[in-house]
Amino acid sequence: MTLSKSTLHLKRLGIDTYKEAVVYMREDCHVCLAEGFEVQARVKVSLGERSIIATLNMIKTDFLDQGRASLSEHAWHLLAAREGDEITVTHAKSIPSLSLVRSKIYGNALSGDNFCEIIKDITFGRYSDIHISSFLTACAGGRLSSQEIIELTQAMVTVGDRLSWPSDIVVDKHCVGGLPGNRTTPIIVSIVAAFGLTMPKTSSRAITSPAGTADTMEVLAPVELDALTLQNVVKKEKGCIVWGGSVSLSPADDMIIHVERALDLDSEGQLVASVLSKKIAAGSTHVLIDIPIGPTAKVRSQKKAHLLKDYLESVGKSLGIVVKIIFSDGTQPVGRGVGPALEARDLVSVLKLAPDAPQDLRERSLVLAGHIIEFSPDVKEGEGLGIATQILDSGQAWEKFQRICEAQGGMREIPKAPFTYVYKAKKRGTVMNIDNRRLALVAKFAGAPSAKAAGIDLSIFLGKNIEKGDGLFTVHANSPGELAYALGYLHDNADIITMQEG
Amino acid sequence: MTLSKSTLHLKRLGIDTYKEAVVYMREDCHVCLAEGFEVQARVKVSLGERSIIATLNMIKTDFLDQGRASLSEHAWHLLAAREGDEITVTHAKSIPSLSLVRSKIYGNALSGDNFCEIIKDITFGRYSDIHISSFLTACAGGRLSSQEIIELTQAMVTVGDRLSWPSDIVVDKHCVGGLPGNRTTPIIVSIVAAFGLTMPKTSSRAITSPAGTADTMEVLAPVELDALTLQNVVKKEKGCIVWGGSVSLSPADDMIIHVERALDLDSEGQLVASVLSKKIAAGSTHVLIDIPIGPTAKVRSQKKAHLLKDYLESVGKSLGIVVKIIFSDGTQPVGRGVGPALEARDLVSVLKLAPDAPQDLRERSLVLAGHIIEFSPDVKEGEGLGIATQILDSGQAWEKFQRICEAQGGMREIPKAPFTYVYKAKKRGTVMNIDNRRLALVAKFAGAPSAKAAGIDLSIFLGKNIEKGDGLFTVHANSPGELAYALGYLHDNADIITMQEG
Repeated sequence: MTLSKSTLHLKRLGIDTYKEAVVYMREDCHVCLAEGFEVQARVKVSLGERSIIATLNMIKTDFLDQGRASLSEHAWHLLAAREGDEITVTHAKSIPSLSLVRSKIYGNALSGDNFCEIIKDITFGRYSDIHISSFLTACAGGRLSSQEIIELTQAMVTVGDRLSWPSDIVVDKHCVGGLPGNRTTPIIVSIVAAFGLTMPKTSSRAITSPAGTADTMEVLAPVELDALTLQNVVKKEKGCIVWGGSVSLSPADDMIIHVERALDLDSEGQLVASVLSKKIAAGSTHVLIDIPIGPTAKVRSQKKAHLLKDYLESVGKSLGIVVKIIFSDGTQPVGRGVGPALEARDLVSVLKLAPDAPQDLRERSLVLAGHIIEFSPDVKEGEGLGIATQILDSGQAWEKFQRICEAQGGMREIPKAPFTYVYKAKKRGTVMNIDNRRLALVAKFAGAPSAKAAGIDLSIFLGKNIEKGDGLFTVHANSPGELAYALGYLHDNADIITMQEG
Repeated sequence: MTLSKSTLHLKRLGIDTYKEAVVYMREDCHVCLAEGFEVQARVKVSLGERSIIATLNMIKTDFLDQGRASLSEHAWHLLAAREGDEITVTHAKSIPSLSLVRSKIYGNALSGDNFCEIIKDITFGRYSDIHISSFLTACAGGRLSSQEIIELTQAMVTVGDRLSWPSDIVVDKHCVGGLPGNRTTPIIVSIVAAFGLTMPKTSSRAITSPAGTADTMEVLAPVELDALTLQNVVKKEKGCIVWGGSVSLSPADDMIIHVERALDLDSEGQLVASVLSKKIAAGSTHVLIDIPIGPTAKVRSQKKAHLLKDYLESVGKSLGIVVKIIFSDGTQPVGRGVGPALEARDLVSVLKLAPDAPQDLRERSLVLAGHIIEFSPDVKEGEGLGIATQILDSGQAWEKFQRICEAQGGMREIPKAPFTYVYKAKKRGTVMNIDNRRLALVAKFAGAPSAKAAGIDLSIFLGKNIEKGDGLFTVHANSPGELAYALGYLHDNADIITMQEG
C-alpha cells in the first residue's frame, strides 16, 4: 500500500501568530481530501530534513491557489522555508506526554523523566497553546511538590543549551519582581563586574509587568546576543546584561511565559523552575535572590516569601548551586519611572551620580551588589556594601556600564514619548498607599513594554505631602489611542493612590 | 481628546479556525500603529451594533492591501460581516472573570454568580482557547464540590436558550459513553415516542469518541434543526433526535467540548454540568442516565460510577428534575459497527427486526426504553420492558423512526467507505479482552467521525472461538491516507484484542 502524494508548494503570506505554528491549506486541496484532515487538527509538516507539528487552518476561498499552502511566520522560521519550497503534510501522531499532563491534573506526581518529556515536547512546538495552558494550570496553585519543582527545574536545564565559564565563581542575581521600576540589575552588574567577579547576566522580558530588565536594557544597548557574542562580552568586561531568550537557555521558558502572560498567572513551582533553570543553564555557581514583600507586590506576605525562600534554597542546593535569599521592602515602586525608557533614565542617573538620581534605587542596588561581592572568598561578611559604594561613587561602575554597552553593540539614546498627561491630586493630603499592581496596569495600557517610551513617571512617595493640583504622576504614551486607554482605566480606578486629607 | 480613526474595511479571506475569532491586520496599518497593538493581543472588533473579542494576527506582507483587514470565518459569522464592511478595532478591556479562574486554580470555591460570569464570557467568545483550557483544567481532577457542580450546571442553563413543552412529563436519556458502537438512542426514542411519551432528544457530536449520537443520526437524517423546526417535529411525532449545538441549549458547551477534545480530557464536574444543563435546557422533567462500567470504558470502576451517580442525582434533585441512574456492562463494544455509518446500519437493522441484527444493541435499547416508559404514571415498575419489546416487535418503532426522519427533513441512504482492510487473527484461540479505548482510536485514525463511512466493523465478541486467519474486524476509510494511518496504529498496537490460545 502506498500513500497518496501529500505535498504542496509554499507561498509566504507573512501571517504572524507569535509562537504558534499554523499551516494554511485549501479546504478542497488534494492533501486535505486524501488525508481527511479536520479544521484545527494538529498535523505534521515536513520540509526536507525538518519537521514540525502545526495547527491546521483551512482556507475556503481562492486567495491561495490550488497546490499551494502557507505557514505562520513562526512555522516558516522553524522550517527555514523559502518561497516555493515543497512541504509534506501528514497526520501528527498523538503526543504521549499529554497523558502525563492528564495524570498531573488528577493529582499524581510527575517524575524527572516525565517533566523532560513534557518540556521537550513544548520546546519542539509539539504542544499547542491549549496544551501549555493546561500544563501550567495543572502545576499552579501549589500543586507541585518540592521534589517535582527540582525535577521540573532540572528538565528545563537539560532540554536547552548550557553555558560554561573559566571562573570558579560565577555570580548572578534575580528579583522576584512585582515592584514597578525596580531596575537594579544593570547597576549591580556594573559594580560587581568592576569589582572583578564574573556576572553573565541574562534577563527576561516582561511577563505580566510593564517592563522586564531585558526590555529596559534594550533601551540602552542591544540585548539579543548569540551565545558566542555573549561569551566575548563577558571575557572582555566580566559582565553583560542580555536577553535570556536569544541564547536558548531553558528554551521552553519563553513559550511558557507567553501563555502565562495570556492567563496572567504566576505559579510558585513554575516561578522557581523558571528562575533557577536559567541561572543553572547560564553556568552560575552563586545566586542572590531578592524577594520584595508588600501588599501589592508579587509576594504579598512573609508566609509566601518564606515558602518561596525554602523552595529556592532547597531546589538550588539539590542542583548544586549556592542560593542566598534576601527580603526587601515591596510597599512602593522603586525609582520614578515605570516602563522601559523611564526606568533606563533612572538607572543611568544613579550610575552617573546625578544629584537628582532616585536614592531608593541607588540604595537597593548597593545593598544587593554588596551581598553579591560577599560571594567572593576574599570579602568578609559585612564588607560588601562598603566596597560596592566605593565602586559606584568613584565612577568605576558608570565607566564599566558604558564599556558593557559598547561590547554589546553600542550605547543608545533614550527615546521620549510624544504624548503625556499629568495626573493631578484632586485634594490636599498625605500619600498613604500606592497600588503597585494597578499602577503597573496603567503603564501597560499606555503601551509598555512594547512601546519603549511608554509608562508612568512618578512624582510621589509614601508619606509625601501633596497640595491640591500637584502632579502625582505623568502618563507617557506613543499614541493617542494608548494614552486614552490608560486614562480610561485611571478614570475607573481613582483609588490607585490613596491620600489622608490634612 | 479624540481617538484617531481606527476603522478598516473587510476583505474575506475565508480562513477557518473553528471557534476561534481571529482578526488579520497589516502590521504597518494605521490602526496597529495608532493603538500600539501587539501580535496575539486580544482586541475588540466592532461592526455596526455588534462587537466581539478576537485574537490579532499580523500580516507582514502585501497580500492584504492597506486599509483592509480580514476575519476568521467564525468571527465573520459572529459579526454577520459582508465584503467591504467597515470595522473598528480597539483595545479589549481585561476580562474580570479571569480572576475567578485564577482563584479556582488556587483552590477557592466559585459561586453561582462566578460561574455565570465565566460561562457568559465563554459563550460570547471573550475567552481564547488558552483561557478555556485553563478553566477546564482548574475544574478537572475532582476539584469541583457538589455545590459548585450544581452552580456550574445552573450557569450553563441560564446563559443559553431553554425549551418548554406542553406535556407534564418530558423524558430524556443519556449514556455516559466510552463504549464504541453503543448507539441505542434512536431506537429508544422511536419506542418511547411510539408509546406516547414526549422525548425531544438533543444529542452531542463526538467529544473524544469516533462518533456521537448526533454524528450517527446525521447519516440517516438532518440533525441541525433550529428550535422552531425541532418543536414542530416533536409536536407531530412526540420525539426527535437532533444535534444539541444547533438549538443554542447550553451554548458554552460546544466551545468547551472543542478544547476538551484537544486536551483529551473528561472531568467529572464538567461532565455532570454538560449532561444535565442540556437536559434542563431542553425542558426535560425525567432523565435516565446509563453508566456503562468496564476497564476500558469511560467509567472504569464501580467506585467512580457511584461517585458520578451521586453527583448526577444530587445535582438533578437540586435543580428540580428526576434523575434515574442505571449501570450497565461496559466490557466490550455494543453492536458491530464503530463509526457513524456503521453504527447507523446496526441500529436500522434492530429497528427493522433484521435476523442478523446485533442482539446486544437490541437488548440494551429495550432495557433502557423500558426504564423510561416506567417514568409514565400509568406504568408500574417492572412493566416497562414488556411494553418496549411489544412496540419494537410489532414494527411500531421502525414506523415511528421513519416518520421522525421524514419530519426532520427526509431519510438518507447510508454511505459505504471505498477503502477497507480485514484485520485477521494471527493464531487460533478464544477472545479474552477487547480494548475499547484503543479500538475507538483506530476508528478515529480511519477518519471517524468527520468521515461518516469510516470506522471499524467488528466480527467478534468476548469468548468467541477464532481460527487462525479469521477476520477479527474490518477497517473502513474514505482515503488511502486514513486507512494507512489506522493500520500504522494497529501495527504498533497488536494487543488491542487479546486471545487465549487453545
